[in-house]
Amino acid sequence: MERPRHQGMAKNTYMRWRLPLICLLWEVAMIVLFGVFVRFSPEADAHWEEEKREMNLTSDIENDFYFRYPSFQDVHVMIFVGIGFLMTFLKRYGFGAVGFNFLLAAFGIQWAVLMQGWFHSFKSGKILIGVENLINADFCVGSVCIAFGAILGKTSPIQLLIMTLFQVTLFAVNEYILLNLLHVKDAGGSMTIHTFGAYFGLTVTRILYRPNLEQSKDKQGSVYHSDLFAMIGTLYLWIYWPSFNSAISEHGDAQHRAAINTYCSLAACVLTTMAFSSMLQKKGKLDMVHIQNATLAGGVAVGTSAEMMLTPYGSLIVGFICGIVSTLGYVYLTPFLESRLHIQDTCGIHNLHAMPGLIGGIVGAITAAAATEDVYGKEGFIKAFDFTGTYQTRTPSVQGGFQAAGIVVSLLMAFAGGGLVGAILKLPVWGDAATENCFEDDVYWEVPEDEESDVYHMHNPDKPASP
Amino acid sequence: MERPRHQGMAKNTYMRWRLPLICLLWEVAMIVLFGVFVRFSPEADAHWEEEKREMNLTSDIENDFYFRYPSFQDVHVMIFVGIGFLMTFLKRYGFGAVGFNFLLAAFGIQWAVLMQGWFHSFKSGKILIGVENLINADFCVGSVCIAFGAILGKTSPIQLLIMTLFQVTLFAVNEYILLNLLHVKDAGGSMTIHTFGAYFGLTVTRILYRPNLEQSKDKQGSVYHSDLFAMIGTLYLWIYWPSFNSAISEHGDAQHRAAINTYCSLAACVLTTMAFSSMLQKKGKLDMVHIQNATLAGGVAVGTSAEMMLTPYGSLIVGFICGIVSTLGYVYLTPFLESRLHIQDTCGIHNLHAMPGLIGGIVGAITAAAATEDVYGKEGFIKAFDFTGTYQTRTPSVQGGFQAAGIVVSLLMAFAGGGLVGAILKLPVWGDAATENCFEDDVYWEVPEDEESDVYHMHNPDKPASP
Amino acid sequence: MERPRHQGMAKNTYMRWRLPLICLLWEVAMIVLFGVFVRFSPEADAHWEEEKREMNLTSDIENDFYFRYPSFQDVHVMIFVGIGFLMTFLKRYGFGAVGFNFLLAAFGIQWAVLMQGWFHSFKSGKILIGVENLINADFCVGSVCIAFGAILGKTSPIQLLIMTLFQVTLFAVNEYILLNLLHVKDAGGSMTIHTFGAYFGLTVTRILYRPNLEQSKDKQGSVYHSDLFAMIGTLYLWIYWPSFNSAISEHGDAQHRAAINTYCSLAACVLTTMAFSSMLQKKGKLDMVHIQNATLAGGVAVGTSAEMMLTPYGSLIVGFICGIVSTLGYVYLTPFLESRLHIQDTCGIHNLHAMPGLIGGIVGAITAAAATEDVYGKEGFIKAFDFTGTYQTRTPSVQGGFQAAGIVVSLLMAFAGGGLVGAILKLPVWGDAATENCFEDDVYWEVPEDEESDVYHMHNPDKPASP
Repeated sequence: MERPRHQGMAKNTYMRWRLPLICLLWEVAMIVLFGVFVRFSPEADAHWEEEKREMNLTSDIENDFYFRYPSFQDVHVMIFVGIGFLMTFLKRYGFGAVGFNFLLAAFGIQWAVLMQGWFHSFKSGKILIGVENLINADFCVGSVCIAFGAILGKTSPIQLLIMTLFQVTLFAVNEYILLNLLHVKDAGGSMTIHTFGAYFGLTVTRILYRPNLEQSKDKQGSVYHSDLFAMIGTLYLWIYWPSFNSAISEHGDAQHRAAINTYCSLAACVLTTMAFSSMLQKKGKLDMVHIQNATLAGGVAVGTSAEMMLTPYGSLIVGFICGIVSTLGYVYLTPFLESRLHIQDTCGIHNLHAMPGLIGGIVGAITAAAATEDVYGKEGFIKAFDFTGTYQTRTPSVQGGFQAAGIVVSLLMAFAGGGLVGAILKLPVWGDAATENCFEDDVYWEVPEDEESDVYHMHNPDKPASP
Repeated sequence: MERPRHQGMAKNTYMRWRLPLICLLWEVAMIVLFGVFVRFSPEADAHWEEEKREMNLTSDIENDFYFRYPSFQDVHVMIFVGIGFLMTFLKRYGFGAVGFNFLLAAFGIQWAVLMQGWFHSFKSGKILIGVENLINADFCVGSVCIAFGAILGKTSPIQLLIMTLFQVTLFAVNEYILLNLLHVKDAGGSMTIHTFGAYFGLTVTRILYRPNLEQSKDKQGSVYHSDLFAMIGTLYLWIYWPSFNSAISEHGDAQHRAAINTYCSLAACVLTTMAFSSMLQKKGKLDMVHIQNATLAGGVAVGTSAEMMLTPYGSLIVGFICGIVSTLGYVYLTPFLESRLHIQDTCGIHNLHAMPGLIGGIVGAITAAAATEDVYGKEGFIKAFDFTGTYQTRTPSVQGGFQAAGIVVSLLMAFAGGGLVGAILKLPVWGDAATENCFEDDVYWEVPEDEESDVYHMHNPDKPASP
Repeated sequence: MERPRHQGMAKNTYMRWRLPLICLLWEVAMIVLFGVFVRFSPEADAHWEEEKREMNLTSDIENDFYFRYPSFQDVHVMIFVGIGFLMTFLKRYGFGAVGFNFLLAAFGIQWAVLMQGWFHSFKSGKILIGVENLINADFCVGSVCIAFGAILGKTSPIQLLIMTLFQVTLFAVNEYILLNLLHVKDAGGSMTIHTFGAYFGLTVTRILYRPNLEQSKDKQGSVYHSDLFAMIGTLYLWIYWPSFNSAISEHGDAQHRAAINTYCSLAACVLTTMAFSSMLQKKGKLDMVHIQNATLAGGVAVGTSAEMMLTPYGSLIVGFICGIVSTLGYVYLTPFLESRLHIQDTCGIHNLHAMPGLIGGIVGAITAAAATEDVYGKEGFIKAFDFTGTYQTRTPSVQGGFQAAGIVVSLLMAFAGGGLVGAILKLPVWGDAATENCFEDDVYWEVPEDEESDVYHMHNPDKPASP
């Protein structure tokens, strides 16, 4: 039943030794580094009873686990099911979408626990981890999954693992600069996750430009059921985004507020996406690409400001704008980027993450700059922006300036990092597919026989399997 | 590759200007109204630190967010993934099922926050919202999604948005009458959500009766994979229904109890559904339509009573009955309603929501009437039925009477509201499809090429795409 | 449109009276038994206000509901969506996979509430249930779903219901021996759920050996989209496994730690699974069977030890090993078991549950034996292993010995129970399908017409439906 399909395949995509080698090598490295560095935080350690006494906690419910674990699980679903299935829209790249996303994220979260741990949870030579570290690791990997969207279907799993290694590293550095050096707020990651991740990915795909990609144009589309699989991804991302933006906010009102703002922004975004999807199409029909993606832009764009006093109507306005911007991007900007700037962006991350991420950074800067003690209350004001210690004299407008600086730093890190990684991935040794085999699962996967011939075979035994 | 498919299409389904107009108009209205009215509740406001002191709360964990957010997310999944995918069973209406459900729900939750807010969360000229408002908005929209089930495949997105506007409004009025004027308990919405939503939808579809709908009969069925997509919806509804029925119950035992009762009722319902699905079929084979729907009737039917002392065995009995009633409904009643009463009920909401909703209302009335201080404890009795203030002298049997009155009011509101909305939707300006194009996505959606021709094209380049 | 398909079918698979009878009989039995025995636990009872006072609880948040309900819902998703969809990989057995899993689990949880209740929650003649009982019931049923994986496609729903009745009973007995008599720790069920469930199922399938099963070999594979459906199951299992292993651990640090350890083990497992999947294949391509299953072995294998001080790097090592063992199992052991030992294991549960379950038991024994007061703290040590009362003098090494004994007991119970149940199921009265009709939904289900013929019919009205 062998079909002679890859006669024309010039490139060596044989993974048999290269992929196992890199997987095992990196996993062994993780074990060694975890062995040396990673231990449980006091709230996850068996000494917790003593810790509780010291911290004067009267109940186990005060363990951070109960504040954050439900959100963690929602975020976990977003990274593995949400993003994974969102990318299954391609008719013959569903295994790669879900499977490679699974691979890179599973590696990435381990490396992120280390990188972020060294920067943020390092005490007496050990990284002490709790549920918040797991969320942060998922967040960090989210930025890699976003970048993966730009190069979906055009890269080998080895390239993805290499990109993950570098991008997680740079993510952690960028995050450290923003959160610790600039003292910027970005709980939902408009800057650190979306802006950084998207421009990183766009830079990589620019460098990996494939001139004759239209050769595989017939595989770049969807089929009916692949669009439904993708909607599973879309809806889980949409539903759980309030958890994403509130997962690492301060306990209490900040988490509560972040969830509400995100809920509002996303709701508005759906309406304007539908409006513009229909409006921009001669036949006035809705386009699944927009519904699958642009409806989520509202969540990206309140990533920085959701935990601030953005207010529900402010969130609606942000969502309103982002649905429009993102849909316009899919219709006009993506083709332009491809034809003029040679940026081949498979999933349109420029429209879903890059632009809304930038808007999110700006909205965050404005919201911070506009903060007053009147609106936040004296204590709330200090708590919301952590204006304590060195920062107790920082004013809202200065904070707004630093927030804006955070956008610029994220962009620079993304371009530099993406350039570096793109150059590495361009080396001809990583086993990427020939252009005519892009977006085709069976380069790297055992793919079962065609559905229809099997079914025919089963149900109409008289009919020959292949006509 | 254009196929001349709609030559016979008499109706104007061109959405290009109408759909965007209504989406943008309504979203702008939402922004203005949110701007005027909606603010954060004290628990989501940055003044929470002060609030905590005033309320003598010692920990952030006392924030209502931590009591209800996990349930909220489960409910959110039910509305968008659960109901959305449940309706993808039609072979060529998956985009419409998931996509239009997404659209109407995203609009509906905003309008519901306002409508319910004016009735229940209005303080000093502002609606103060927290996580409970989000759950209630999802609940309210749930009733619209239910009604959508009756008219699935036969209406334009514009009609759905208009229906949502009216139905959410009437839902809020009906809910106010029940909860505030009649002082009725209905935490899981057997009456307010299911009875009201289902009879509303059935009235609408009666008025929109299409005499020649059998013309599109070939599209009213499922295909193998569309049935599996629908099972995603079914299972998520089934799994999360305990969260649905407990989401807005009182903190503590009431939430706990509501979850347990619902879990029991749903489990029993699966057994009787399977039994009757097989029994009512000559060949004795199971029918996916029953499994997808009737297994959920047990959740509907304990919507009112789950938070009461229904007891686990009481719940089993309710589930037992509802699996039978609902399956019988699919086999006998739905064809009867269509042929005799001209009620064309695409998803069979009469069997899944209307009858079980009525049963739920009745079970609630009986359970309330049978309540005793012995069973509930003195404090528990008062707390369970909120027999305080004006209501401190109300007896269980009187409460039972009011509960029963709640069913009647919900029915009347549903018929009146459904009649009104049906009449509006019958106007020939909303762009609904011709009867021969019902249940067909490509009236309103860009639909990708057929799966098989593409796949053939890809895998057997020698074979012409269309034989 | 009737197709004469089952001419060769020698066996009587007519379910019309047998299936309804058993469903109704058992559900009635459940109602009676629940009526006699099951009541609410104090935390779910309306007397909770008094209970709170007695227990000196200051807040409703101390109700066990808030400690465990989010984990319960995650576990619930794993049992019904996770395992259900994982088994949809077969091209024409998706209805059976999801539907029969639904049926047996819905029955099983009721029976498990009773069986486990008699052993563990029996007070003054009543079983008092709360959220922990629901989790335990789901756990118990999980072991039946695992066993179902071995016989998937070869048994009638009646056989499954009978197996569920017996297996739940024996599970409860085995669990009682382990947890109460041997005082063994097994919060995530490496022994009680996975080892017991898998060897039970393998024994059953051995006894039900079908010599000519290769007759239905063409139906034992997957198609493209069935593999994607299965990935939904895989990912939800993978994502929520930290909830599974932590769901019934002690409040506080133990739950927190169990989640972290499981997260780590699963991440490592993905990497080694991918490595070996590619390595063991001549073409070096990844095999969906491995990705769907072996990536989960890491969760199984820390089921016993996750709540102990296994440490993150310890978890990585366990996951590392299990990804390898499980993938090797799929490639070499499953064919061997089938050809030599006549064990036909449809889903390869030997590789996903049996071996990793054994490893999990062993890792648990070692981790317990290696425990020291230094690592756990004095209080933490006592709390972790519940070294109180009769057990206050038990040492870690003795505990390790008892843990190891738990493995042996679970194995013996599985073999004995599986043997008994297999013998019962072998009786020729339960309506199982003929060998040539195995793995074929339409033996027990109304299956819609073939996708392609319908679609052709719809889109190319000129083309005859069946060529």
